Amino acid sequence: MTVRVVVPYDAATPKTRLADVLTPTERAAFAEAMLGDVIESVRDAGGTPQILATAPVDTPAPVTVDERPLTPAVNDVLADATEPIAIVMADLALATPDSLRHLFDATADIVLAPGLGGGTNAVLVREPEFRVDYHDASIRDHRAIARDIGATIQELDSFRLATDIDDPVDLPEVLLHADGRATDWLAERFRIDASDGRVTVTRR
Amino acid sequence: MTVRVVVPYDAATPKTRLADVLTPTERAAFAEAMLGDVIESVRDAGGTPQILATAPVDTPAPVTVDERPLTPAVNDVLADATEPIAIVMADLALATPDSLRHLFDATADIVLAPGLGGGTNAVLVREPEFRVDYHDASIRDHRAIARDIGATIQELDSFRLATDIDDPVDLPEVLLHADGRATDWLAERFRIDASDGRVTVTRR
Repeated sequence: MTVRVVVPYDAATPKTRLADVLTPTERAAFAEAMLGDVIESVRDAGGTPQILATAPVDTPAPVTVDERPLTPAVNDVLADATEPIAIVMADLALATPDSLRHLFDATADIVLAPGLGGGTNAVLVREPEFRVDYHDASIRDHRAIARDIGATIQELDSFRLATDIDDPVDLPEVLLHADGRATDWLAERFRIDASDGRVTVTRR
Repeated sequence: MTVRVVVPYDAATPKTRLADVLTPTERAAFAEAMLGDVIESVRDAGGTPQILATAPVDTPAPVTVDERPLTPAVNDVLADATEPIAIVMADLALATPDSLRHLFDATADIVLAPGLGGGTNAVLVREPEFRVDYHDASIRDHRAIARDIGATIQELDSFRLATDIDDPVDLPEVLLHADGRATDWLAERFRIDASDGRVTVTRR
C-alpha cells in the first residue's frame, strides 16, 4: 500500500537563510531542485507525494496552495485525513529512498525523524488526533503531543533525514553526501573548501 | 565475538571550540562525561573499548597514551592490528548501543559513519591496508583510501553517530536527544533556549 506524503513548500520566499550566499533567483532554483529530489525519493520509496505550497509552483507532483503558515496548513490536512499521512520537508536534499522507506515502514502510531537544531524533518502520522507544531524545538513538542494522545512513538536515527538544508553551513553536506538535482545545481556553482580548517563551500 | 574499539581522546586540550561557552575546567569535565558515555555505549553494544589518549586520563577503560596528532596515532594502531578494529570518536554524546551495533554488525571491509561537516565519526576497519586521514573533509579521503585498496565500503545513515559535539551549536542536540552523563552534566548548567527563533543553550 502506498503512503500519502505531504511535502510542505515555501514557494513565496524560499530559503531566506541562504541569502548570504545565494541570490533570490538562485534560492528559488535550488529550493525547486531539492523539492524535485524529494519528490523522486518519495516515489522511489513507495510514497505518493502531494505538495502543500504557499504559492503555485511548477513541479512534477500535485500541488495544493495554502498561503497560511506551516503549522495550520499541515494541521488542516491532518484533520481531514482518513488514512496514515507522512509529512516530509522539501529541503531534505540528502534523503534517499532507503531512508524514507524506514519512515514509511515504521509501525508506531507516530514516527518522528528529528532534524538538526530541534526540528522535525519528517513525521508519519497514524493517529488521527495528532497535530503538528513546527515552532522552535518542535521535536519536543511533537513528543509531548504524541504522549498526550496516548500514541506510541518511534524516532528514526537517520543522518539523511536529520539534515535539512537551510543554512550556509548545510551546503557542504549536499556536495559530500547527495547526488540528485540539487547536488548538480550546487556543484556547478560551488566547490567544497576546507582551507580554513572548517568545511564550507566557495563559489567557483 | 567482541569488536575491539579504539576511542581517541584529546586529554590535553579537550573541546577548545567550546571555549566561548565553557571554562577550561568545564570543558575537561564535559569531555570526560562524553567519553564515559561512549565507553558505556560501546560495551553495551558488545565492543571492547580502549582509549587512545594524548595524556593520562582517569576513565573506566584501558588507556594508551600517545601524544602525537590523531592521524598518526590511529594509523599506528591500525598497522599493528591483527583483527577488525573500530575507531569511534569520544564526543559522540548521542551514540546509543543500537547505533553502534549497526556499525559493528555491518559487513563491508570498511564501514564509515559520516560526521556533520565532512568528518568521519566512526569507522570499522576489516581491511589491514586501510589507513585514516582525519584532516579536513575526511569522509571523502576515507572513501578514496578504501577504493584505492579495493575494499568494499558501506556508509551508515545515523544521526546519532553523525552528531559529534564540539561546537556550541551542537550542545542543544545533547539536551534534546541524549540521556547519559554528558546530558546530566550539561542540563545542570544549561537549558534549551528557542527565544530568538534558533535553538541554542543558555546558562541557568
